[in-house]
Amino acid sequence: MLSATPRTSLGREKHRGSTDRNDLYQVLDTGLVCHLGVVADGHPMVVPTCYGRVGDTLYLHGSTGARSLRAADGAEVCVTVTHLDGLVLARSIFSHSVNYRSAVVYGRARLVTDPDERMDGLRALSEQLVPGQWDYARRPSRKELAATAVLALSLEEASVKIRQGAPEDEDEDYALPVWAGVLPLVTAWGKPEPDPVLPEGIETPVHILRRE
Amino acid sequence: MLSATPRTSLGREKHRGSTDRNDLYQVLDTGLVCHLGVVADGHPMVVPTCYGRVGDTLYLHGSTGARSLRAADGAEVCVTVTHLDGLVLARSIFSHSVNYRSAVVYGRARLVTDPDERMDGLRALSEQLVPGQWDYARRPSRKELAATAVLALSLEEASVKIRQGAPEDEDEDYALPVWAGVLPLVTAWGKPEPDPVLPEGIETPVHILRRE
Repeated sequence: MLSATPRTSLGREKHRGSTDRNDLYQVLDTGLVCHLGVVADGHPMVVPTCYGRVGDTLYLHGSTGARSLRAADGAEVCVTVTHLDGLVLARSIFSHSVNYRSAVVYGRARLVTDPDERMDGLRALSEQLVPGQWDYARRPSRKELAATAVLALSLEEASVKIRQGAPEDEDEDYALPVWAGVLPLVTAWGKPEPDPVLPEGIETPVHILRRE
Repeated sequence: MLSATPRTSLGREKHRGSTDRNDLYQVLDTGLVCHLGVVADGHPMVVPTCYGRVGDTLYLHGSTGARSLRAADGAEVCVTVTHLDGLVLARSIFSHSVNYRSAVVYGRARLVTDPDERMDGLRALSEQLVPGQWDYARRPSRKELAATAVLALSLEEASVKIRQGAPEDEDEDYALPVWAGVLPLVTAWGKPEPDPVLPEGIETPVHILRRE
């Protein structure tokens, strides 16, 4: 079950909220980029960044010098992952909506110092983007690890919202001669584009070719 | 030219920054959803929401009761729009990256009260999602307008970052027998799905069928 704290309980559209922790995992695990919100010098700052999940912990990373990570270390943050699945075209402008799945996680970010947990977090980040790549490409060197900050965020306080399906119009609008329905948005992987300087004879590995 | 204030000047990866205002417009105009960051009760809150642009003003909207909009009214906000174009697979894990275009806008949100500007903002929001729909579906009624808050945000303080192209590996890694390149991410519109209760004889309008 997901928690219901004052900030994760949904004020509006409660029917779109899910309290199923598996929905949270599904939204997070199928995403590629999250939006990290921090308070920097008193104002909100939202940056897109990659992430990974291990159990009930989310991992973020970045250069030790990045402003957003410096502002997040030890501070309250908000991480949001959004999938846009389609546009919901109603008979009235007011009833228009979007089909989406989104997760919002609140908590205090923790700078990870334990070498094993750092490595687990980085592996999760890598595998979230490209499963199989961690065992294929060159692993981080000691110097590279020293330049990388890893942050952990507990999934204790999180909410999930999902909207699916057809438009919901006002009763009187169903008589209008207006087309209504859903325009789906489809995201797919394109054909891998080899680095122009890649030597001949290095084949595209299966885990990239067959990425779903 | 885009401004360079302390919070929009890029601390890292300056070469990915663009100072061309047309790049800002391009990133904003081709997006569907932004992530709105506000400070609510002292902590950051990031919510996905729709937006529209008129000149150098961004418009957001929502229920007059929505928590995020109440927190944004008259307050410092951050609006971020991100396009993920592909995964950049390098020879080392550390050099992995993503190809993306993102815009970050900072400013104080202003509650729009002028009826004409409110209507212009709502039209921009509608046309951003589905061009042509504003003139096709039923316009908002007085009651619906009363339930809708419209916020304006100036594009005066904004930054744009763009990363494109092949991976950039460490010199010594180019000799590794590791495939490297870009895995493009492609977003496309699916086939329109009519509302199951749509009466026969109402054709899908051209502006939805031919949406690019």
